[in-house]
Amino acid sequence: MKHFLSVDDVSDPEALVNEALAYKKNPHRDRQLGSGKTLGMIFLNPSLRTRVSTQVAARNLGMEVIVFNIDKEGWQLEFADGTVMDGSTTEHVKEAAAVLGQYFDILSIRTFPALRNREEDYSEHVINQFVRYAGVPVVSLESATLHPLQSLADLVTIRELCDNGRRPRVVLTWAPHVRALPQAVPNSFVQWMNRWNKADLVITHPEGYELDPRYAGNAVVETNQDKALEGADFVYVKNWSSVKHYGQILSRDPSWMITTEKLKVTNHAKVMHCLPVRRNLVIADDVLDSDASVVVLQAGNRVWAAQAVLSEILRKL
Amino acid sequence: MKHFLSVDDVSDPEALVNEALAYKKNPHRDRQLGSGKTLGMIFLNPSLRTRVSTQVAARNLGMEVIVFNIDKEGWQLEFADGTVMDGSTTEHVKEAAAVLGQYFDILSIRTFPALRNREEDYSEHVINQFVRYAGVPVVSLESATLHPLQSLADLVTIRELCDNGRRPRVVLTWAPHVRALPQAVPNSFVQWMNRWNKADLVITHPEGYELDPRYAGNAVVETNQDKALEGADFVYVKNWSSVKHYGQILSRDPSWMITTEKLKVTNHAKVMHCLPVRRNLVIADDVLDSDASVVVLQAGNRVWAAQAVLSEILRKL
Amino acid sequence: MKHFLSVDDVSDPEALVNEALAYKKNPHRDRQLGSGKTLGMIFLNPSLRTRVSTQVAARNLGMEVIVFNIDKEGWQLEFADGTVMDGSTTEHVKEAAAVLGQYFDILSIRTFPALRNREEDYSEHVINQFVRYAGVPVVSLESATLHPLQSLADLVTIRELCDNGRRPRVVLTWAPHVRALPQAVPNSFVQWMNRWNKADLVITHPEGYELDPRYAGNAVVETNQDKALEGADFVYVKNWSSVKHYGQILSRDPSWMITTEKLKVTNHAKVMHCLPVRRNLVIADDVLDSDASVVVLQAGNRVWAAQAVLSEILRKL
Repeated sequence: MKHFLSVDDVSDPEALVNEALAYKKNPHRDRQLGSGKTLGMIFLNPSLRTRVSTQVAARNLGMEVIVFNIDKEGWQLEFADGTVMDGSTTEHVKEAAAVLGQYFDILSIRTFPALRNREEDYSEHVINQFVRYAGVPVVSLESATLHPLQSLADLVTIRELCDNGRRPRVVLTWAPHVRALPQAVPNSFVQWMNRWNKADLVITHPEGYELDPRYAGNAVVETNQDKALEGADFVYVKNWSSVKHYGQILSRDPSWMITTEKLKVTNHAKVMHCLPVRRNLVIADDVLDSDASVVVLQAGNRVWAAQAVLSEILRKL
Repeated sequence: MKHFLSVDDVSDPEALVNEALAYKKNPHRDRQLGSGKTLGMIFLNPSLRTRVSTQVAARNLGMEVIVFNIDKEGWQLEFADGTVMDGSTTEHVKEAAAVLGQYFDILSIRTFPALRNREEDYSEHVINQFVRYAGVPVVSLESATLHPLQSLADLVTIRELCDNGRRPRVVLTWAPHVRALPQAVPNSFVQWMNRWNKADLVITHPEGYELDPRYAGNAVVETNQDKALEGADFVYVKNWSSVKHYGQILSRDPSWMITTEKLKVTNHAKVMHCLPVRRNLVIADDVLDSDASVVVLQAGNRVWAAQAVLSEILRKL
Repeated sequence: MKHFLSVDDVSDPEALVNEALAYKKNPHRDRQLGSGKTLGMIFLNPSLRTRVSTQVAARNLGMEVIVFNIDKEGWQLEFADGTVMDGSTTEHVKEAAAVLGQYFDILSIRTFPALRNREEDYSEHVINQFVRYAGVPVVSLESATLHPLQSLADLVTIRELCDNGRRPRVVLTWAPHVRALPQAVPNSFVQWMNRWNKADLVITHPEGYELDPRYAGNAVVETNQDKALEGADFVYVKNWSSVKHYGQILSRDPSWMITTEKLKVTNHAKVMHCLPVRRNLVIADDVLDSDASVVVLQAGNRVWAAQAVLSEILRKL
């Protein structure tokens, strides 16, 4: 693995899941692998789980970690080509990425979409310019349209809880929210599930919330949420804004919130969410406070997912 | 020691003071104790001494340290139970604490009071929810009503400067300020002094500034500052807002500021303050720039206090 | 070397350049030198290159590093003597510096000028108070009027690219900008070039942009930019505000921007800039995207410059 921007950078998702689970059993087995190497973590947006879990993972591998909130501690970046920089941006990504590439052995970066222009966001022009100019491997800590470290942790969680060889039924359900959110988590989850192909995936959402077909592929879509939930082994809950009417909120329908009542038709489903989750808006207290919720386990698995990815890149340096 | 939230978590304060002084003599004698363990430092509020001294202490013990300004770098937290999270808070402490507990072996946290509702602040509902949900030991880096790492460093300083077996006279004096400040430092100091019981404590403040009796206990209160200062060996200066008229400023009387003139009635008292201190408002330049001031020594002792506490918790992990 | 505030702290600039180049060849040859020592990095202003390169350098030497954005994470500092602190400043530099000196073996700090009062900025009263009160070696990460770590990296870059014993012609040229910028980089560069004395320096700028003579010394000034550029081996581009009309922008003349056309009269000059650079305002895309630009190499050399300086100080601790 050179870069880690999506499942397309992974030759064998199942092997990567197994490597993550092996690190979970023995976190320090590769403490020399990253010795003398530095991971840069560049944040253009807030982060809790990604920020902390990736630091822990890198240190487990013996790497140095330098965290840099470029939006708050550095200079405002310009991403457009050919612009006369006489406005508010102070540094062009061409210099910023190339310079950071001088300091780090692996550069990781988080950058959210503006949700104003679909073509711009889906071109992934921000993270792609870091790849182009940094000259070192780049790891996505969530980009405009994908969140591959999250998806790998999601697969690890499903594998860990469903280790009996059975092919589980996994339902990805939209849920309401008060703000317009990116599609990165659902896009990435369906892309990984399709490639992994160890579960039956159903996507459910109100009309107008169809995911981009380049990620959703041939996944089954069922717009009746109750019907979709029938017999589910895992219910992955997540809000996202519309792709079609780009960045818009088309529905706030509270009946899409996941409750214990709604889960009755499932096969004692485990409930997943990438967090942060707004309680009693996206998922009800009665679910999150019950044994059905595996959101904390899932967040804990972010460490092992990041450690597996970093170790693969380190081996190729 | 499991958690460290107040002196009530300490079986023997004198032993902890001596452990801190032993680390001061030999900072690196336990460099293996924390190897492979990670301390998370979560800040909901600004910090200089606590932030830096605790990092130094943890590294002296071989621990990894991850600092996280959750207020600036993460998501806004919700602390109320059962709320519909459709407002400005993005993540509930139930998830945030539980997830951070997955990443850290010890979680430390700073959280200031809002000073609007006494019952709410004195219930310590913020730090207590971290204790409840984190699933790992929690160390207070100052909570709504107490600052135990500061108090331990205060005792270390008194012990260090008064090692002749004599029982010193220690005066805690209120001083004026322009902002309404928490009661955490004075509460905690009197609580530790009462438990330690190696000094005679006198508290002096204007009417209406009585500390909460659950911390002040039977400490002598003398509202005449000049009388209180007579024969003092140590004068601990600190502003706090009223407990009775909660969070209010009842006095700005400049005659309570500590000056060299005022100290003439003391027994060549050493002057203490937790810092930051506003010069010529709380303590005059002539005191802070004289040999009477031990505020820098006291701040330096924060390292050894934190190291003693972390080492005790690490031994029980 | 005790402190590192300007070239005046360096006994032999050429030896320091060579030490930096030696670290570039073998970054980890002194991994034990800083073991058990802590570098504090205090930022009162934004930073990318300095922040990251100095961390990498310190870790290469085995030092612990603690980064502290005092402006955002700590308390607002007071620098005036004798003031009654009843306003917005919370902590005096006398305490802040002395306390930080308790925690760090070397204290490094970045502080920009206010550009309102020349005497105040040129007295370097901020960094000098840290030197006075910290009680440990202080390294400038750029102060009000000088940026010595940058200048050392600049000399390393020139030496690296011009290793044939020839005395290169180096032109420092002013370029337009939309904001009023400090004079720290040009001041420091000319001060180092004068001391180093291994190149012929020419300074070019519009009328009114004369640098302070205490730094510029006897360097040749040529106000005709085209004439200055003739035969140049290196062109160092940088905007600065006026010293004479202190902190003011006297010219925005776009004809001073460095373009490929302008460089035709040079000796295939290499183009330098300390970064961040505003493209098509200070330097045109055609230069920055060509082989003439060495700005990324120059930024990369910041690591080795910082490592040489820290190692010199560590050897004297």
